[in-house]
Amino acid sequence: MTLAKIALDAMGGDDAPSATVTGAIAALTGEGSLSAERVILVGREDELQAELDKAGGNPGFEIQPAQEVVEMGEDPRKAMRGKPNNSITVATQLVKEGRAAGAVSMGNTGMVVAASTLLLGRLEGIRMPSIAVTTGITGEPMVIVDMGANVDATAENLVHNGIMGSAYASGVLGHSSPRVGLLNVGEEPEKGPKRVKEAHAMLADTQLNFVGNIEGGDVFASAADVVVTDGFTGNVILKLMEQFGGFLLEEVVKSAKAASVDLPREALLPVIRGLDYAAYGGALLLGVNGTVVIGHGRSSSRAVANALKQAARAADAEINAQIISGLKGIHLD
Amino acid sequence: MTLAKIALDAMGGDDAPSATVTGAIAALTGEGSLSAERVILVGREDELQAELDKAGGNPGFEIQPAQEVVEMGEDPRKAMRGKPNNSITVATQLVKEGRAAGAVSMGNTGMVVAASTLLLGRLEGIRMPSIAVTTGITGEPMVIVDMGANVDATAENLVHNGIMGSAYASGVLGHSSPRVGLLNVGEEPEKGPKRVKEAHAMLADTQLNFVGNIEGGDVFASAADVVVTDGFTGNVILKLMEQFGGFLLEEVVKSAKAASVDLPREALLPVIRGLDYAAYGGALLLGVNGTVVIGHGRSSSRAVANALKQAARAADAEINAQIISGLKGIHLD
Repeated sequence: MTLAKIALDAMGGDDAPSATVTGAIAALTGEGSLSAERVILVGREDELQAELDKAGGNPGFEIQPAQEVVEMGEDPRKAMRGKPNNSITVATQLVKEGRAAGAVSMGNTGMVVAASTLLLGRLEGIRMPSIAVTTGITGEPMVIVDMGANVDATAENLVHNGIMGSAYASGVLGHSSPRVGLLNVGEEPEKGPKRVKEAHAMLADTQLNFVGNIEGGDVFASAADVVVTDGFTGNVILKLMEQFGGFLLEEVVKSAKAASVDLPREALLPVIRGLDYAAYGGALLLGVNGTVVIGHGRSSSRAVANALKQAARAADAEINAQIISGLKGIHLD
Repeated sequence: MTLAKIALDAMGGDDAPSATVTGAIAALTGEGSLSAERVILVGREDELQAELDKAGGNPGFEIQPAQEVVEMGEDPRKAMRGKPNNSITVATQLVKEGRAAGAVSMGNTGMVVAASTLLLGRLEGIRMPSIAVTTGITGEPMVIVDMGANVDATAENLVHNGIMGSAYASGVLGHSSPRVGLLNVGEEPEKGPKRVKEAHAMLADTQLNFVGNIEGGDVFASAADVVVTDGFTGNVILKLMEQFGGFLLEEVVKSAKAASVDLPREALLPVIRGLDYAAYGGALLLGVNGTVVIGHGRSSSRAVANALKQAARAADAEINAQIISGLKGIHLD
C-alpha cells in the first residue's frame, strides 16, 4: 500500500524556503518519520533546489512548481484572483486532484482557509470549517477548537466543533475516548450565552464522550481532551496563553534575579517545552474535504517537520471519515 | 463634610463573619484608610459582636441587623423571595435608602447582581450592568469589563462597558485619560464578530481615548488601561489567567527542583503579588444606581479591607456621575 502524499507550501512562513526545506528533511527522521516520497515541495523550483543543495541534495522529494507567493498581510480574496499560481493555491490544488491527501502551509492563514474552503469544499454536513490547535501545557495533549476560523459560531457550529475535535483527538493524538468539554462561564447547563446553552443540550445528545461545561480555569486542570468554543473566544484565549506564558516566565527570571537566585534557563526548560506549540506541529483546519495543516508564520524547521508528520497522521487516520460518521449520530435540523 | 458610608455584608464569603469583621478593622489603617464611622456591618448582631469582642471591641462601626444569609450556591431569585431579610438585600437596601453610598459583599455573586439591579435600578441610559475587575499583572492596574454579568452582550452593551470602565479607571485607579481597547481577534476594524465590529465603529465616535482593537496577547503588553469585552469572554479569560498563573508557577517550582535549583518562595513573591487579585479589592458592579463591590468568596481579611477602600474611593469619585456624562457624549440607535 502506498501512503498518501502531503503537499508542503515551501514558500510560506517568515523563514521560507529555508525553514520549510530543512523542515521537510527533518521530517524524514525521528518519531513518526515520513519517507521522502510522501512529501511534495510546492514553490519556486530554483529557490527550492538551492536550499536542497545547501542541505546536501534532494533526498527524494517531488517538486511542484508555483511561481507566485502570497505575503502575510495580503487580502486572501484579492490573492485568489491576482495570483492564481501561488504556492498555497497550487498545494491545495494537489489535494483537490487527489495527488496529495493533505497540504501544509506556514503562510497567510486567511489565504489557506480561503483556498481550502473554495477549492476543497466543506465536508458534507459541516457548515463552517474550524481550526483546531493542540497544546501540551498540562502534560497531556489537548485540542482547542475553534481558534479563529468562525468568530460568529452558532450552537450547531459548536456541536460540529465537538465532533471534529473528538475525531482529531482520537485519530491523531491517540485519545481512545476523548473527553469533550464545552467552554462556558459555569458548570451548570443553564448558564452562559444562548448559543452555548443550546450547544450543551445538543452535545449531550451525541455519541461523544461529552463531559459538560468547563470553565476558563479548567483548561489547566486536564478537565477535557477537547475544548469546544467559538473562533472568537478560542483565538483570544490562545493568544492570551501564548503571551501570558512568556510574560510570566520573564517575570519569574527577573524576580529570581532580584532575589539573587541563580535560575539558569535549563532549569525552566520543561516549562518552556510545555508552552511550545511547535511540539505538536500546526493547527488543523477541520471540516474541509482534505487534510490541511496551518503552521505559525514563525515556524522553525522543527515545527515544519512536526506539521508534516501531523498532516500525515491525520490523513492516515482518515479523520474526515470519522467526522462524517460522527455527524450521522446526531439530528440537527 | 461627612463622607458617605459603605455597607458591608458581614455574612458573605467562605470565612465570614471572621474575615469580614477583621477586614473591616484592617480597613481603618494603611493607604486610603477609612474612619470607623464610614463602615456599616450588616448581619447577625450576636455573631458580629462576638467577632468584634475577639478583636478587642467595636472601634465605632454601625451595626445593621440582618438575620438571614444567602448561601453561595443558592438561586438568587428564590433567595430574593424566600429570605427577604438576608444580609445582601439589607446592605443593598441601605444604599437604596441613601444611608450608605455603597455596598460590599463577598457572598453569592448572582444574588448581589440581582439585588443591586432590582433594588437600586440601572443608571439612566445603561441597559445591562457589567462587572469590572482590576488586575495588576503587568505592574499597572488594568480594568477588564465585563467579567460575567452580561454574557450575551450587544455592540451597544460593549460601548457602555467602555464608558463605564473608563470612568472607573480614571476615578478609582487614577488614570488621567484611560486608554480603552476593544478585545478582538485582530487589529483591523473589519475583523471579528458582527457585534464587535459594530462596537468598534461606535467606540471611535465617543469622547473616550479609544485605542482600537487589542488581541488576547496584548492584555499583557500594557496596550490598554481598560479592556472592553462581553461577559462570556471576560469570565473565561479571567478564570483562565487566574488558574494559568498558579499552574505555571507550580510548574516553575517543580522544574527548578528537578534541576536541583533552590528557588525559595520569597524569590517568586513579586510575581505572586502581581497575580494577586486581592490587592485591588473586588470587582465593581457598574451600571447600577449606587456603588457595589463584589469580592471573591475566598476573600481574606486583607481583600475585604481593600474592597471597602475601593468602594469608598468609587463612591467619593462619583464615577456614576461620570458615566452618565460619558453616555451623553454618544448617540446610539
